[in-house]
Amino acid sequence: MNYAVVFYIVGWLLRFEAFFLLLPCFIGLIYSEASAKYFAIVSVISFIIGFLFSRKKIRDAIYTREGFVSVASSWIIMSAIGALPFYLTGEIPSYFDALFETVSGFTTTGASILNDVEVLSHASLFWRSFTHWIGGMGVFVFMMALLPLLGGSNMNLMRAESPGPSVDRLVPHIKDTAKILYLIYLVLTTAEFALLCVFKMPAFDAICITFGTVGTGGFGVLNSSCGAYTTNQQNIITIFMFLSGINFTTYFYLASRKIRQMLNIEEVRYYFLIIVAAWLAITLNIKDSIGGIGKAAQQSIFQIVSMITTTGYSTCDYEVWPEFSKTILVILMFSGACAGSTGGGIKVSRVIILLKTIKKELQVLIHPRAIRRIRIDGKTIPHEVLRSTNVFIAIYFALFLFSLLLVSINNFDFTTNFTSVLACFNNIGPGLSQVGPSKNFADFSVFSKCVLMFDMLAGRLELFPVLLLFTPSTWQRQIRKNLHEKHK
Amino acid sequence: MNYAVVFYIVGWLLRFEAFFLLLPCFIGLIYSEASAKYFAIVSVISFIIGFLFSRKKIRDAIYTREGFVSVASSWIIMSAIGALPFYLTGEIPSYFDALFETVSGFTTTGASILNDVEVLSHASLFWRSFTHWIGGMGVFVFMMALLPLLGGSNMNLMRAESPGPSVDRLVPHIKDTAKILYLIYLVLTTAEFALLCVFKMPAFDAICITFGTVGTGGFGVLNSSCGAYTTNQQNIITIFMFLSGINFTTYFYLASRKIRQMLNIEEVRYYFLIIVAAWLAITLNIKDSIGGIGKAAQQSIFQIVSMITTTGYSTCDYEVWPEFSKTILVILMFSGACAGSTGGGIKVSRVIILLKTIKKELQVLIHPRAIRRIRIDGKTIPHEVLRSTNVFIAIYFALFLFSLLLVSINNFDFTTNFTSVLACFNNIGPGLSQVGPSKNFADFSVFSKCVLMFDMLAGRLELFPVLLLFTPSTWQRQIRKNLHEKHK
Repeated sequence: MNYAVVFYIVGWLLRFEAFFLLLPCFIGLIYSEASAKYFAIVSVISFIIGFLFSRKKIRDAIYTREGFVSVASSWIIMSAIGALPFYLTGEIPSYFDALFETVSGFTTTGASILNDVEVLSHASLFWRSFTHWIGGMGVFVFMMALLPLLGGSNMNLMRAESPGPSVDRLVPHIKDTAKILYLIYLVLTTAEFALLCVFKMPAFDAICITFGTVGTGGFGVLNSSCGAYTTNQQNIITIFMFLSGINFTTYFYLASRKIRQMLNIEEVRYYFLIIVAAWLAITLNIKDSIGGIGKAAQQSIFQIVSMITTTGYSTCDYEVWPEFSKTILVILMFSGACAGSTGGGIKVSRVIILLKTIKKELQVLIHPRAIRRIRIDGKTIPHEVLRSTNVFIAIYFALFLFSLLLVSINNFDFTTNFTSVLACFNNIGPGLSQVGPSKNFADFSVFSKCVLMFDMLAGRLELFPVLLLFTPSTWQRQIRKNLHEKHK
Repeated sequence: MNYAVVFYIVGWLLRFEAFFLLLPCFIGLIYSEASAKYFAIVSVISFIIGFLFSRKKIRDAIYTREGFVSVASSWIIMSAIGALPFYLTGEIPSYFDALFETVSGFTTTGASILNDVEVLSHASLFWRSFTHWIGGMGVFVFMMALLPLLGGSNMNLMRAESPGPSVDRLVPHIKDTAKILYLIYLVLTTAEFALLCVFKMPAFDAICITFGTVGTGGFGVLNSSCGAYTTNQQNIITIFMFLSGINFTTYFYLASRKIRQMLNIEEVRYYFLIIVAAWLAITLNIKDSIGGIGKAAQQSIFQIVSMITTTGYSTCDYEVWPEFSKTILVILMFSGACAGSTGGGIKVSRVIILLKTIKKELQVLIHPRAIRRIRIDGKTIPHEVLRSTNVFIAIYFALFLFSLLLVSINNFDFTTNFTSVLACFNNIGPGLSQVGPSKNFADFSVFSKCVLMFDMLAGRLELFPVLLLFTPSTWQRQIRKNLHEKHK
């Protein structure tokens, strides 16, 4: 392990976090809140540590191991620092709970330990939502867009942080790709904020909800999540959750007027189809109990899009829906949104690959000598991507069951345990039963919260970077020496 | 599709079923039960249909497609015929329920729709348990042991019916392998029956429980499953459930005095370790609530072995155990027993391959240029087995979630839906909540029962044979013509 590289990267990350922390400080000043001070203090701490870590410029190549470990460590340290203001202001009395809340924020999960969010200061509420925005597109993608970090290839940082079976380079240079991604992200953010303001949502709510939407996070500023907003406001949120779950390549094609390529993206079509199918099914299933098909349609599409994009906002207590509708939501939670979006979960593209693999396997049994290739968007999927998708899904379920076992020590009911792991692992937020939309994660034990934080990070970074942290041979120094010798 | 081959194989199967049906008829005669008559009638029907189907000897090769389709169809038709006596005797008033019970029997699931099994006639109880024995080792394995079916290679029938990622040929000829497997099976059966009789279990109970144990089925003859038996009797059942979940290759090595090879079987070691770990955990977890460590140990090992071998017997209502213990049972249900045993589930060998794959993937990230092979029992696992294992696990979870969705229409709670699919898919029997050890599957809708029957068959035949039935191109005639032309 080349520790120097890891420290250097973590250091740069902390410099950025120091900058991010100034924003809630500024909000605190606007509202003349005492909490502003603490954000300023933590910002300074973050900058100092960051500066010390990244003082000496490192020009070593970032290998997969270093890249993955740097990203995973960065996310943990970023959360550890980001949790400090909540604790120092006394708004979350336990540092551990503050950490849970912050991990939940950065990983765009939105699972909360707060019974009452409305008592938080504006600065804290803003920071809580802003972590979604930072975590949604990824902090390293942000860093890459702004500075030529480390000079060399940053592909391994991007790979570790970007969701989906493969990283699309929209343009030849990673830096430009990162810039384009953030530009799209900014356009979405601005558009939603503006629209919400037009429809008379208070500006502070609008900015926080926008961060939670485009980052597919789910932290709100009211205890009722989005239940208290007007129908129009809810519909705008629905639309922007939907848009944030789309593969951002789509927008790049749209902007480049490559309409044919855009319409050719199979994942987006499937994403759309899944949503429509679920919409029909749930609307018909709940229409009698909720009072009419119109209301059913409006409520169901909100929760559906919120679940498939792994946002986790809610406008009603879907706990009371029939089991069929709830199970559809559970399955949407597993699927998740498109790769290359800000959403979590297994990703629609992996689901497509899985379904096509099943079809292929059956075809091979029927015609053993036929050579079958799996194609998406008209292109043959490389063997390596197929393999890694199958491995991903297998590991995903193994980790899922292992987490379920550990969380069960808490002695909640099976549905609570199952959906709490599901909601954290897929970065959604609420689940069913004791972690339903009107409940929260406050009552879990410290141990369960640790497991769930691990799941949030493993889910957001797509398993491998976080798993590497727990692999003993990751930490062997030996290889570093070899690399150094090679460099000489 | 070469329909002639399929009919021929199904025909032979029905001839065998006619013979199997004579046994419960004989039991009925011993107890002078009216039901004996119906078993005789169905036996004759089965023989006549079987004779008509297999009158003309077919010498075509059995390709994968024909083999898989024949086996899947055979299992369905075998269940359809096997359900008739339950219906004709009026002991199960609905034919559909009788079919569910019979599919559950042949697939060694042991999920029942009967509220009161003690009112059944001896003939029916015997048949119910005997279906476990037939289904446990597999009816085609039985056929192959006895007659040189179709002359040519029967590997594709064996592959379709045998559990596990690969079929071990113990000896060069399949026929001899089949004979050895049934010999081991008979030895286990005789030993358990004898021991249960020695420990004063009534002979009728002993034979039925033995069938349910060695076939890892789970149908009993008392409403309390195994709760009413003495501790000694329960312990004997525990031991034989354990032995039936071991890869039968172990016994072959033992009999051939290849002790080193025997001890070298990793799967059996893991199987043993998993059981010991679960035993420790559950015993400590339940000891206070169940009255002492001794009783806790005895009760927990029974349920653990019953779950991991996918038998499904119970001696107590584990519904009341703490959630941690219940979750361990749920995870054991997923794992299942060894490949090459009579148990269901994902199989320990696949779990090992999965864990080693995770390890390998992480190693590759750390040392990208190192070539890593996955070894089991000291042998490198071929790429094809690794691939099919990952694909199996991915398809397994996809089908699992799809079934969960369909069963949820029934509007039971999430735990019931989840564990009913789990219990049927992995051929266990009881689950949790409404399908807990003291409950049954009677209240599910016809549609849910169809889904669960599909799951039982898909689980027992390891997905592909049953999935092929639902693939349109399986039924194209075109290929048959090509084959015929090739044969000319």
